[in-house]
Parts: sequence; C-alpha cells; structure tokens
Amino acid sequence: MTRHAIQEALALAHQARLICPPNPAVGAVLIAPDGQVIGRGHTQVRGGPHAEVMALRDAQARGQSTRGATAYVTLEPCSHQGRTGPCCDALIEAGVAKVVASLVDPNPLVSGQGLARLRAAGIEVEVGPGADEARELNIGFLTRMSESRPWVRSKIAGSLDGRTALNNGQSQWITSPEARADGQAWRARACAVLTGVGTVLADDPLLNVRDVATPRQPHLVVLDSQLRTPLSARLFGQARALWFATTVSDPARHQPFIERGAEVLVLPSADGRVDLPAMLAELARREVNELHVEGGPILNGALMQAGLIDEWLLYVAPKVLGPGRPLATLPEQTDLDQTHALVFTDLERVGPDLRLRARKAPQR
Amino acid sequence: MTRHAIQEALALAHQARLICPPNPAVGAVLIAPDGQVIGRGHTQVRGGPHAEVMALRDAQARGQSTRGATAYVTLEPCSHQGRTGPCCDALIEAGVAKVVASLVDPNPLVSGQGLARLRAAGIEVEVGPGADEARELNIGFLTRMSESRPWVRSKIAGSLDGRTALNNGQSQWITSPEARADGQAWRARACAVLTGVGTVLADDPLLNVRDVATPRQPHLVVLDSQLRTPLSARLFGQARALWFATTVSDPARHQPFIERGAEVLVLPSADGRVDLPAMLAELARREVNELHVEGGPILNGALMQAGLIDEWLLYVAPKVLGPGRPLATLPEQTDLDQTHALVFTDLERVGPDLRLRARKAPQR
Repeated sequence: MTRHAIQEALALAHQARLICPPNPAVGAVLIAPDGQVIGRGHTQVRGGPHAEVMALRDAQARGQSTRGATAYVTLEPCSHQGRTGPCCDALIEAGVAKVVASLVDPNPLVSGQGLARLRAAGIEVEVGPGADEARELNIGFLTRMSESRPWVRSKIAGSLDGRTALNNGQSQWITSPEARADGQAWRARACAVLTGVGTVLADDPLLNVRDVATPRQPHLVVLDSQLRTPLSARLFGQARALWFATTVSDPARHQPFIERGAEVLVLPSADGRVDLPAMLAELARREVNELHVEGGPILNGALMQAGLIDEWLLYVAPKVLGPGRPLATLPEQTDLDQTHALVFTDLERVGPDLRLRARKAPQR
Repeated sequence: MTRHAIQEALALAHQARLICPPNPAVGAVLIAPDGQVIGRGHTQVRGGPHAEVMALRDAQARGQSTRGATAYVTLEPCSHQGRTGPCCDALIEAGVAKVVASLVDPNPLVSGQGLARLRAAGIEVEVGPGADEARELNIGFLTRMSESRPWVRSKIAGSLDGRTALNNGQSQWITSPEARADGQAWRARACAVLTGVGTVLADDPLLNVRDVATPRQPHLVVLDSQLRTPLSARLFGQARALWFATTVSDPARHQPFIERGAEVLVLPSADGRVDLPAMLAELARREVNELHVEGGPILNGALMQAGLIDEWLLYVAPKVLGPGRPLATLPEQTDLDQTHALVFTDLERVGPDLRLRARKAPQR
C-alpha cells in the first residue's frame, strides 16, 4: 500500500515540476481506512495551495471524509505561515490518522517542526518511503535550503571526441533536434539559466523555453564581468527576470541595462573576476533552486575549477570533429589523480545522440 | 518453433566465437518431426568438424534418427571440400527434410551452392531467420568474404572530454578494471590486434589476451613504417603470429625481426607511408576476420581519414582531463558537414565507465 501510494504521490509531484518553482514540487495522496484513494493534489503556482491542501480539497469535493485517513506526501508538511496556511494544521483539522512523508523538509522554517506538530496532535508519522525519488525531484530546492546555493547543472552538447565546436566557432548543430528538445525540457524545469558573455557575443541567443509548454520562463543570468553585452542583444525585453553578474561597479554603466529591464549584480572577487560562489549565494537568496548552465568552455571551465558544477547534462553526437573547442577550458594537469572525477547517474539515447548525466564523485 | 530453434543455434554459435577463427562461428540444432531437439553442435577449432556435422554426430550418439528432421543453422551449410567434408552432403545423407539457415554464406566457395545442392536433393530450404544476429556474430568473416578486408574495430579508452592521455603521456589508467576486462573480451574474439609503433615505444605492451580463457591468441600486427620497434620489445616471443607492416624494403633490416619470429610485410604507398588498404587486403589474405585496433591517436587518425574504421569501441570514464591527447589526430575542419558521421549501435555501463559502440553512418 505504502509503496503504491507514494509512487502516486511522486507522479503528482512530477506534474508540478514546471509550475511550482521556487516552491518544491510535492505530491499528496489521501487513502481512506478502507484503502480507497479519496484525494490527490500537488503544489500549485507560487502563492497557491500546497499539495496537502489540494488533496484535502479534492476529498471534500468528492464528499469523502478524511477522518482516520492516511496522507502520503513527498515532503514534510509545512509548519510555517507562508502565503498559505501551514499544511500540518490542515491535516490535523482534517482528522487524518497517519502521515507518511518521503523526506524531512530542510527548510529552516520547517525542518522537522511539521512532523513534530503532527505527532503532538496524536498523528502517527512515518518518514522515508520514496525518499530517493523525492530528493531527485527537488534536488535544487533541497540544495538551496541546506547549502544556500542552487543545484548547478551544466548542459553541454558535443561530439564523441569531446568537441563543442570547430575552431572556427561553427557548432550549429552538432547534436540532433531530439537532443535540443530534450535540453529544452531541462531548461524549463530550472529556476534560472546561466550563460556567459562569450556565448551572448557569439550566438546572440534568447535562452528561453520554446518547445515545452510552460507557464513560467526561467530567469536569465549573464556572467559578464566587464558588461560587454551589446544593448541590442536579443536576450533583453523577454518576459522574465534578467540579471547581469559583473565586476563593474560604476552606476552609469549599469543604467542602460536597468533601462532595458535588467538588474546588475556587482560581485567582484579579489582577483578581479566575478566571485562565483558569491554569485551562487545571491542566486539562492533570489530563490533559484536549479541553475541550468548553457555556456561555452570558458564558463564551464571556471565553474568546474571552482568545484561548482553539481551535474553535467551532456549530449553526445556520434561524430568525430577533430581539432575544436573543448567541453571546458581547464589548465593543463600533470597527474591523472588530479582530474575531476565524476560518476555517471544515467545514460539514454535521444534520437541519434546520447544523453549522459554525471555528478561530482563523493569526496574521498 | 523456428524462432526458438534459431535462438538456440545462435547461442551455440556464440560458444564457438573464441575458438573457431578464421572459420565463422556457426551453431546448428536438429529438431525431430515430433518437435524434440535431437542434436546440437557448433564450429570446432580449425580443421575440426563444422556445426552441422557436430549436431548430426550428437544425434547419432544419442541414438536418435535424423530422418525427416529439420536442421536450424546460423549460416548456409558449406558445399566445398575443405579440411572437412561438405556439410550439405552430410545433411543430405542424414535424410533431413528441411534446412533453415540464417544467412547465405558469401564465401565464393559456397555462396548459395550449399543451399542449391540441398534443394536439388529434395530438401526444403528456408533462409533468413536470425539473420541480424548471425551477421553480427560473424561480421568479420562476412566482411572478409564479401570485401576482401577485415572488419576493423578500434578500441579507445578516454575521458568525458575526449582525452586518451594527458599531454605528458600519462594514461594509466583512465578507465576502470571492469572496462579493461571488457576490452580484453573483445580482443579475444578478434583474429588479430593492430597497434602502431608509437604505442610500442611508449608503453611496450604485450597486447595478448590475459583475462579471458581462450585456446587461441590473436595475431599481432604492428604498423611500423620505419621499423623503429626495439628488438627488446616485450611483444616478441609470444605464442602467436607477429607481423610488421612497413615501408622498409631492405632485407638486412628485416633480418633481426625475422630472427625473433616475426614476419615483415613491405607495403609502401605512393606517399612513402604504409599503404593501409593494401595492409588490410594482405590481412584478409591471411584470413583475419576481425581486426582489433589498439593504438594511439595517430594510428586512429590515419585509419579514420582513410575511412577504414568500421566500428568504434569506446570506453568513456566519468572524468574531465582538460588539455590532453585526442581520440584521433585529424586535420582541422572548417565545416561541420565534413565531420566523420557515425551511428551509435549500443551503449552499456561497464563498472563506473560507459562502453559506446558506433559505426560509420550509411553513405548519403
């Protein structure tokens, strides 16, 4: 029963993934004492009800009593008065007998207090079923809550020999339309897209979500230490937040960017470049859960050397390019033990290409 | 019935793969009119009986009558008097009623004559079931028979960013023990291994089969246009054929190689390098079906530019190396349309690494 109900709650949570950021994607299923499903819900757009309240309303709309029911939720019910009332209070009022939660919410405003309050009200509480999948679903939210930074996923398309472009810059299109559509789906689930000024100057990209039906465009962050982005760039004037991370502190130079609807974040490091950890901390303050990187080798190299790429989303075309641009510009190493070690998390064929995902290997 | 019997014949053929080269790996299953399996066989070591004869002997040993039986074989029964008598005659004598063969044998000595002779004897013949798998199993033999060259499979181990070594040459071990063991299994099924003098000078490798139980070591071919291989190299004196492909025609320079048990093949091209197509033709004459390439970027680049790599066997470690040696040394290209297009045939996780296989894309 538990396994089936949690799977259904996870499936509901999946449906919320594109709409709910920066809130976590949560699903809830209510099961009556006789085993019947009496309510289902998932997180709504920001400011809307959470999953538990949606499931309780669903039961009510069907004329079902929630007394003595078990609530299966993919994240600990919230205990704080946000834009909506605390979910744990709603569950207590509804008279549920038991709550099964996949994960404790690391949000400091919740962090076990929701479960404690349920227990104090005499409700049986179980934690853990479906934890792995629930964690994957909200890896950005969980990282932001526990580490005050977004989950950084870098999308790169390259050839079998690790080239992202020929030396003359030609790169359209190494990978297939299928791979590009898959990349759009990952872009759509992110809270923000990060690119570098090099990509802006080279490709003048929009970097918005086009091929996926979504009610929400990810914010766009441009790493532009010298504010070299042309004011005519296509990325201005889109319906989304646009932030420039720079070392330029002169307000006069910010002005044209601000006039075009952007914000300028001045984040200089001691070595005169943008302070990347400070940038991520600022993005976390701005409630960015998943940061989807679509940059060139210089941006990827800088993030990688700083140890800031959590996940690689790599599309590999069955082509051999020969000399060309690398996945990431890195300094020469002299010992294989110094190389950046990752672990593959999944691989899949996407059209004629491959999609590989890899994460930082656990520290030894 | 057909599908099940052919699957069993293919499984038998798989068992023959390491022992039978340069003969094709063939399996045979005899089914009595009542549906019972009465005999099984596969190709033996060279000079031994073929699959059909083994299956007939198996039936005889069990006291089963082969009269009216159906023979399922993964390749057309031979019609020529080789080291063993023609299999089609043995089937006719055994009184089988029907022969189902996966493939016609492209060997000019057979090439439909085996099936014709069976038909002439009043035996029903069906061709085709299991053809795809039977073709894969003997892709080297079939290529040699139809194109007078081996099937060239290049094994390369590299990083996620397409590096096979750091610039200082360090490459041991980018991939895992599991990947290396898998590579040994592919080496074991080949008739010959090809390497370049660069690899010999850098690594002094043995290039024999160690981790796989095999009755047969593949031959070793060294591409060494100037005969620079040190006479102290470990590759001498192994129990296998050893061939050097060179442009050096001076018999005095061949002598020390010959004294160490090697043969020297003088194959100069017009441009003063080894004539690669001529080398492959010579290897086909020497009955090499699958040629397993284990070389460096220069050898792989040369073979690739000549369009001679049929299949890539690529082990990818979840590491990012930064600057380093490429999979293949290729001239700079200026247009993505000129790149070497492949198709992925399969991908698999091998320990922490990936194994990708890719083949030349069909010509447009």
